[in-house]
Amino acid sequence: MKSAPRFQAKSQPSMDLVERLLAGERLALARLLTQVENDTASGRAALERLFPHTGKAHLVGITGAPGTGKSSLANQIARALRRLTDRQPPRKVAVLAIDPSSPFTGGALLGDRLRMKDVSGDAGVFIRSTASRGAVGGLARTTAAMVSVLDAAGFDTVLIETVGAGQSEVEIVRLAHTVLVVDAPGLGDDIQAIKAGILEIADVLVVNKADLPGVDHTLRALNGMLDLAYPEGSSDRRRPPLLRATATTGEGVAEVVQAILEHRAYLLESGGWQRREHDRLQREFESLLTATLTARWRDRMGEQAIQTIYERIARRELSPGQAVEEYAALAGSKQT
Amino acid sequence: MKSAPRFQAKSQPSMDLVERLLAGERLALARLLTQVENDTASGRAALERLFPHTGKAHLVGITGAPGTGKSSLANQIARALRRLTDRQPPRKVAVLAIDPSSPFTGGALLGDRLRMKDVSGDAGVFIRSTASRGAVGGLARTTAAMVSVLDAAGFDTVLIETVGAGQSEVEIVRLAHTVLVVDAPGLGDDIQAIKAGILEIADVLVVNKADLPGVDHTLRALNGMLDLAYPEGSSDRRRPPLLRATATTGEGVAEVVQAILEHRAYLLESGGWQRREHDRLQREFESLLTATLTARWRDRMGEQAIQTIYERIARRELSPGQAVEEYAALAGSKQT
Repeated sequence: MKSAPRFQAKSQPSMDLVERLLAGERLALARLLTQVENDTASGRAALERLFPHTGKAHLVGITGAPGTGKSSLANQIARALRRLTDRQPPRKVAVLAIDPSSPFTGGALLGDRLRMKDVSGDAGVFIRSTASRGAVGGLARTTAAMVSVLDAAGFDTVLIETVGAGQSEVEIVRLAHTVLVVDAPGLGDDIQAIKAGILEIADVLVVNKADLPGVDHTLRALNGMLDLAYPEGSSDRRRPPLLRATATTGEGVAEVVQAILEHRAYLLESGGWQRREHDRLQREFESLLTATLTARWRDRMGEQAIQTIYERIARRELSPGQAVEEYAALAGSKQT
Repeated sequence: MKSAPRFQAKSQPSMDLVERLLAGERLALARLLTQVENDTASGRAALERLFPHTGKAHLVGITGAPGTGKSSLANQIARALRRLTDRQPPRKVAVLAIDPSSPFTGGALLGDRLRMKDVSGDAGVFIRSTASRGAVGGLARTTAAMVSVLDAAGFDTVLIETVGAGQSEVEIVRLAHTVLVVDAPGLGDDIQAIKAGILEIADVLVVNKADLPGVDHTLRALNGMLDLAYPEGSSDRRRPPLLRATATTGEGVAEVVQAILEHRAYLLESGGWQRREHDRLQREFESLLTATLTARWRDRMGEQAIQTIYERIARRELSPGQAVEEYAALAGSKQT
């Protein structure tokens, strides 16, 4: 038995994907992520089994307007976390990059993905990108599920990188314990307006590309916005630290990593970790509940009856609101 | 009776807001829009009564990356529509501008709102801006409701302007019959990637700021993307016309307006108008249904039982999926 080839230990035929993932096998992880990404039945079943193994990873969202250099910064953060010697063995880090929803983007974003490659030689770093399929809720749900798989696989830190320019990105970063909002000098006022929307969810603020002209202006502008959002004397929310970094040279990255770890410590001390975790699971439950209740209503009503409702609405015989009032109850009583 | 002051005709005490809106009173329109925006009970009741009066307006979404000059273009399109003499009286035009979700943005976007002001002296143009409150579905729903009010108020064209940089904006423009995607030269490749996501929903493509250097490069790039998306010989989708305009000078705006009207004619001929209308109402119904079913489930379960579920999930005794399986049915059978 001792003479069995070494690779067999990696893929014992008696172990299924979930067991192999929990045993740390990289191929099983990649396969399960794909199943979960595609929302297959086996993926869903695996998620149920993995659930008790989740809740340990530090989930860090990295978001910001286009052009801020988020990908490079995520790359550098992953490398810096690996180099930290406060833990032995060093932290395992996963990066999940979310692309905007489009068949066109494969090419456009390839540059980003390639840039990430320079950490991929390290077995303690796992990089995966995913693209939106279908609705807003769909992407957020898929992302949550993929993060759970990475969490169960034993990654200490999961970096979730999103193109942070809309509400859907806000939904995604709500997954995270710690949200890093990345800015850069010279993006113009129009971008500034969008950024404002995500400033509110920042736990750590980073002005990247700090070697560019105008960095002091950007820092001042952000400080001004923070002054507005966190007036002196009001201590109910923690004011996010404002840092500067240059991902291309690595300058300032150590301080960013420090701020991420400090926010984690703050969350654990203040009870915020548990609260975020609780909120996240609650949203996941509610999202599934909503989908299930609607699917059951459809089953009870039958496709033909539903089509009739749509036609009556299209003829403006009754409004969508009146239709819901009339038929949501009807299908309910049918069940008795 | 004839000597009664003229303003009484505008606000007969016997008429309620809905009747006054249908009679064309501007103040009633503004008030109803606020009620609907705030989702008040009277706003919801008004929407039900207005529903039979909707379905006539041409809904035109105007979207694009930040910095493309969407607001100025919307302004110019509104003016140009008013100047068209093919109909007497000329078309009534409403502009609904959607701001990104933030308490910070009031100031940042004021510039846009001010620029819009130069059509506001015209009684045939109505301009309104709204900001997101709460969730993604919330903004889309509020926007749909406000558009319905404008539709019922007799506006021939409703321009819906959004900061088109995310999924939530895609949700909003799905309201529209005709989607105008606005681009501009020199926004950089990162922005390009985001734009790709909304290119798929374009019915008319406009490169604005056509007086800037690099406009030919932008036109070529977009043409290349269109070639990919609409290969020669495949005729199942209409390839959007690609136009150039300079909103600040008005150059090219007449052609943009022409393309919008041609798309409307195309939709009416091809049956696409009815199909989009049908899809839109169906989504509205489904969104309301989902909210109603979930609210009823909550009522049946009771708040305490729901808290117990959340706690069991937080202790990882059961997964969100298992909880839904267990409790969605339980509450259903309680109803019998």
